[in-house]
Amino acid sequence: MPRYALVVEYDGTPFVGWQRQPDALSIQGVIEDAIFKFSGEEVTIRGAGRTDAGVHALHQVAHFDLAKDWEPGRVRDAVNFHLKPHPVAVVSCSQVAETFDARFSAIQRRYLYRILCRRAPPVLDRDRVWWLLKEIDAEAMADAARVFIGHHDFTTFRATQCQAASPVKTLDQFDVEKVGDEIRCTVVARSFLHNQVRSMVGSLKHVGEDKWSKADLASALAARDRTACGTVAPASGLYLADVIYPRS
Amino acid sequence: MPRYALVVEYDGTPFVGWQRQPDALSIQGVIEDAIFKFSGEEVTIRGAGRTDAGVHALHQVAHFDLAKDWEPGRVRDAVNFHLKPHPVAVVSCSQVAETFDARFSAIQRRYLYRILCRRAPPVLDRDRVWWLLKEIDAEAMADAARVFIGHHDFTTFRATQCQAASPVKTLDQFDVEKVGDEIRCTVVARSFLHNQVRSMVGSLKHVGEDKWSKADLASALAARDRTACGTVAPASGLYLADVIYPRS
Repeated sequence: MPRYALVVEYDGTPFVGWQRQPDALSIQGVIEDAIFKFSGEEVTIRGAGRTDAGVHALHQVAHFDLAKDWEPGRVRDAVNFHLKPHPVAVVSCSQVAETFDARFSAIQRRYLYRILCRRAPPVLDRDRVWWLLKEIDAEAMADAARVFIGHHDFTTFRATQCQAASPVKTLDQFDVEKVGDEIRCTVVARSFLHNQVRSMVGSLKHVGEDKWSKADLASALAARDRTACGTVAPASGLYLADVIYPRS
Repeated sequence: MPRYALVVEYDGTPFVGWQRQPDALSIQGVIEDAIFKFSGEEVTIRGAGRTDAGVHALHQVAHFDLAKDWEPGRVRDAVNFHLKPHPVAVVSCSQVAETFDARFSAIQRRYLYRILCRRAPPVLDRDRVWWLLKEIDAEAMADAARVFIGHHDFTTFRATQCQAASPVKTLDQFDVEKVGDEIRCTVVARSFLHNQVRSMVGSLKHVGEDKWSKADLASALAARDRTACGTVAPASGLYLADVIYPRS
């Protein structure tokens, strides 16, 4: 059976998250329904990242198999047609090797977190950013974020319901950039724990507010204790921005 | 009476446009209502640009007078409070000289026009771009756009209902830039005719599609005839991006 990989973009706002749930609107669910409507085949798709409710994607990847051999461009267009009016779109589709797995073949995931600091509420970016009324210190955050880089036990920054076997992860990159009245965090790792990015960004915000020092952030990490975590940043600012696979 | 100037951001999608109209939701109307709710004063505000239905603003400027002398930051916050839930926000407020006029003092206006070229519909940018299914040639557009620069009779690119006394305008800048699968046009002039940016961008699209040459665009301009205009680009891609005043 031919295997297809989709690159998917979505606005997470109206969804309970990526994962299909009974009687609730999920991104996985609306894509599986759209695939059924065009192909008549019931499939289960697997995504590279199981994003939470309200989290967006610029570049999610998902795979599935169909009995029939379709031209990938037709799959993209037909799934998009049946996805309407949901804010989910297939940016591209390709046929991939039957050994390809969107989740397990991925060697790197990139997340973007957007923070808007100003008195006025976001309007064109409503539900797209974390809105803070006061400016925070992006440079202090950029410096402190280096604490996260490398191989660590991230228990502090892991949701209690996280199902990963180990809390140990290797963080490759954590950049903090100021663009106008916005702060953009780019976080890269092979894989992440549940709520890890939002927990790290929320804790880093305390550094930006000068409530925590860089040493406080390092202590929180070293504590390996969920109660040492700061605020968990809201879902609205988070985007799954890219998923990298080995070149075949 | 103290005069106040607001910098305003809005999502134009739900509005009939900037200008107040009876029994219809306008940006001017919801701002005037919000000013009344906090100050008890009925005012008429004047905007730098009277954007059409569906056109957005990153930086619109509007002025009005109040009998009372308020701290400008309080005006900003109070108007924002009463603007909810409309997608309009006051980014900043300042007291200005009583000779300041948001419309007539402006010496330059900058518009941004965003075109998204891809098979998949826009999702995170729904109602924020002009969506084209096929790639168009941004370099050819950038070159042809030079035809518009300078002092011209823009009758071809002017809505029939335009009320300006003269169709002659001076265009300072028309840049076309490709950013990923997006084409961004930046258009700068002291002032514009009604629908001028959308008429110019829509005609330029024919150049991007290789249906018009640069010479065809020049002929359309020289015709000084509305029927020589190409497509009028949709409102959703247009943003009033900046308004410049002389330094006082």
